[in-house]
Parts: sequence; structure tokens; C-alpha cells
Amino acid sequence: MRDVTPDTISDVFASYFSDETDPRFKEVMAALSRHMHAFVREVGLTHDEWRKGLEAMEWAGRITTPERNEFVLLSDVMGLSSLVDMINSREGATSSSVLGPFHVSDAPPMALRADLKGDFEGEVVLVQGHVRDLEGNAIAHAQLDIWQTAPNGLYSSQDPDQDIMSFHGLMTADENGYYAFTTVRPVSYTVPTDGPVGDILNAAGRHPWRPSHLHFIIKADGYRDLVTEVFPDDDPYLDQDTVFGVRRDLVMRYSPQPAGTFPDGFALSGTVDGPWAKVDFDFKLATK
Amino acid sequence: MRDVTPDTISDVFASYFSDETDPRFKEVMAALSRHMHAFVREVGLTHDEWRKGLEAMEWAGRITTPERNEFVLLSDVMGLSSLVDMINSREGATSSSVLGPFHVSDAPPMALRADLKGDFEGEVVLVQGHVRDLEGNAIAHAQLDIWQTAPNGLYSSQDPDQDIMSFHGLMTADENGYYAFTTVRPVSYTVPTDGPVGDILNAAGRHPWRPSHLHFIIKADGYRDLVTEVFPDDDPYLDQDTVFGVRRDLVMRYSPQPAGTFPDGFALSGTVDGPWAKVDFDFKLATK
Repeated sequence: MRDVTPDTISDVFASYFSDETDPRFKEVMAALSRHMHAFVREVGLTHDEWRKGLEAMEWAGRITTPERNEFVLLSDVMGLSSLVDMINSREGATSSSVLGPFHVSDAPPMALRADLKGDFEGEVVLVQGHVRDLEGNAIAHAQLDIWQTAPNGLYSSQDPDQDIMSFHGLMTADENGYYAFTTVRPVSYTVPTDGPVGDILNAAGRHPWRPSHLHFIIKADGYRDLVTEVFPDDDPYLDQDTVFGVRRDLVMRYSPQPAGTFPDGFALSGTVDGPWAKVDFDFKLATK
Repeated sequence: MRDVTPDTISDVFASYFSDETDPRFKEVMAALSRHMHAFVREVGLTHDEWRKGLEAMEWAGRITTPERNEFVLLSDVMGLSSLVDMINSREGATSSSVLGPFHVSDAPPMALRADLKGDFEGEVVLVQGHVRDLEGNAIAHAQLDIWQTAPNGLYSSQDPDQDIMSFHGLMTADENGYYAFTTVRPVSYTVPTDGPVGDILNAAGRHPWRPSHLHFIIKADGYRDLVTEVFPDDDPYLDQDTVFGVRRDLVMRYSPQPAGTFPDGFALSGTVDGPWAKVDFDFKLATK
């Protein structure tokens, strides 16, 4: 149209779609353009600001690799990833939370009550719970893909000193939906700050920290996959996760346990002499 | 916050800014997040759709070079570039339009009434007019940076057979603001379609064509720079520019002129035997 104006451009954009366009594609793209146009109008975006935005995207493109995705990180710190997680969560089910870039495919199977920490030192944490449906019934043999940082704050894919499968394991819950493993505490860490996302956080006066967490992907036949994280209630960044991943129902507690009380039946049984900590956390899955 | 919900995430995002944040940066980023969040909520963006969007950005990053900027093109076909142009235009001034990726710095100076087409064949077009202020007064010695496609539809930077300064020239208007040069008609062309933007256009059933146009950047002391394009009224894509660059006041006309009437005083005077065409187009600049 030669009569495009700031007020008509969203309608002109929508008018360009052919009648054969997939309706959902049209809905999403027309809404995206409309909201982006509204943003530009509302703030009166200048050419300089537009250029700075594009330069941030170009920079993100230059540093994105299969191992480091600056666009995902940008989506994370803008709250987009978490919002997509939230609106796709089912009422009553455990909240989903960001997958993050450190998941590793084909994690090694680990037995029920096995140990995830390997040779790493530190207070032993026993994590256990049940996987249930929305009515509280056990989901037998749910599969749990579990990963976390090492005590040095690094995931295996970030750390040349760790085996790639370090702190990664794939567990199958028992017929009662029970899962259990031992580990050490994951630690708070910062998202990468040497790219455009770091510049944005810095300009906003925002810190780059995430509260410590355990990652889970939980799958069971007939149920929706749950990608989530579980956060300890004593983490100083719990209320200011830079990627907005925390939900109230994802907060867990390290319950301190005295020396000499570590239970039998675990891979580490007989080796835990000092105090240890226990985490009880149940997951609720929605049906597909 | 551990109580982030789809309804509160924009406020939580805004709450993360420090008190020392540049107020304009906060305004722009908070509004961007708010509008993006509203988009995600409105369409109920799924994880698959979010991933597809990120993959498009990653692809754009991989193919963006100093010579080809897929992010700028994405901004163009989404109507963002044109919207930024429009809201930054001054009432009464000639509309601005997209710079595009084919501008070349340090174009060679060309004298008043010089020729831009070099050795290229084709009907001669004489383009002339005045650069004026908003009251219609001449702006003496305004500088016009002019560029266009060759008849093959390619800009010099796209075409190994053209000198990089082919169809690029820098003219200074006279004391009356008069400018004039000869050339051949620029032609309609397609934006690049071998990247994510091409996929988006294809999925939308949109063509990739731009109507033919002459590019101008006009500068004069005390006035705002004008970056614009001028489009002939007989172009088949005039009402469906894929980058939304056409404005009604940027439409010009090729006025056919009979053989033997080409005026004196031009570089080409004495060499134009056949019919030619004339374009009269005035520019109006706003003060800074």
C-alpha cells in the first residue's frame, strides 16, 4: 500500500497474507507484528535505538554455537522463555521451568537409589519423592532425566575437567512412582555475560545470577512431558532469578539430618558417616 | 520473584532494573518486554513455536555478514523499519524510507547535470528538482547521495560485473537548491529469499518484490538528514512493497519526452537522440 501510516501498518501487514496461509501461522505472525508495532509507537523508537537493537541481534548471531545459544539466553532474561513455560503448564500439574542450554542427550541410566555425584566431595543430599497424576495416584515407572551443576558451579559441558555425563543420569521410578538418588548440592551460578545479554543486564543494573537448582525432565506414557527445575528455599537468588525460572511450587528444602542416620538400600549406604540432608519433592504430571 | 505468573511477569521484569538505570533504556526495555509478553499470552505461544522462532533467529545469525544483514531484512519485512522511519519523520517534510543494505560510503562526487548510468544502455531519464525547507524556500548547496539498481536489478555490491561505485554518486545542489542528473530506470527486484525471511514470506504466501526506486540521502547544514526512496507510479509492486517503504508523497512519474528535445547543459546533451523521460521531484527538509 502506498498509504501505509503508523496507524495502518499492522493492518497492511496482515493484508499481505495469502488466503492459503496456514491460519495459525497468520495468527502468530500478525499478532507478533501488531505487538512489535505497538512497542515501536509507544516508545517512539529512534533510528539509533533501532540500530542498537539490530547490532545486539547480530552480535548474538556471531557468538551462538551449538554449545552456547545467546538467543535462548536473550529469551530467558527477557522473561519470554518462562512465560512460554507458564502458559503451557497445566493447572494442578507441577510447573514447568526453563530447560536451559546444559541438557545432555542420552544420559546414562542410573538405578533407583543410585548416586549422581560420583567422585565429587561434599555433604551428601538424598533427593526422593513420587511422580503422581493430578489426582495423586502414582505413575508407575515414570522416567526422570536429572542433571545439575558440579560444586564448582559448572555443568559438564562447560567444564573440561568433568566427563560429559558427570552429574547427568536417567532414572526410572518404581511401580509406586518412587524415585530416589544421592548427590551434592548444586550451586548458584551466573549466565554468560560476555555477549549482548551481558550488556543488557549490565545496562539494567541487573545481576546475572541464577539460584541453584536440580533439573528434571519427567516422562511417562500418556502424560505430558514435564521440563522443570527445583530450587532450594535457602538460596539467596530465589526471589531474583535472572531468567525468571522460579515458581512457588518448585521450591524445596534441604532438611538437615544428623550423623549416623543415613538409610540402607542406597548406593552410598555405609559410606555416609557425617550429617547429610534430605529433600522430599513430588511431581505431578498432567495427561496429554 | 518466586510468584512470577503470566500476569505479573512484565512487572517483575520492570522491577529488576536498578535505580541508576538510564531512564530511556528502562522505558524501552520494559515496554519491549511488556509487548512481547502480551504477544506470547495473546496467541498462547507453544514451545514448538518458540523453538521455531529461535531457530529463525539462529539461521539469520549464521547468514548475516557485513554485506548481507538478515536481521535488517527481517525488520524490513515485518514493517518495523518502515514504522521507525514513519514515526521519526517530521510533519510536512518529505517522508523518509528504508535505507536498505546497498548504500555505499564515499560515493564519488558528481557535478550538477552529470550522468549516473555510465556505460549502461537504456532510455535516458532526466531527474531534477529542488531541495526546499518546510516553507518552500530553497536550501542552497544541499548534498544528495544517490544510488539505484543497474538495469539487471542488481546493486553494485551484489554484482561482480559492476564497479562498486556504479550507480552511486554524490551531488551538491546549486544555490537555488536545484539538483539534476541523468540515469536509466531502476528496476523492481526481490529481497533475498534463501534465508529465514524467505521462509517467512513463503509461508505467508507473500512475494519478495520491491517496486523500483531511486535512493537518496539528503543533507544540509541545520536540517535533519533525509534518508528516502522515490518510486515511479507505474511500478506493478507500488501497492505491495514487501518492505512497506512506499509513501504517497514518495511517488514520482516518468514523463515521456519526444526525440530531439533533450536539453542543453547536461553531461549527456548532444548524445540523446531518441525519446527520453523526465522526472520532477522536490524534497522538503525539516530543521533539526
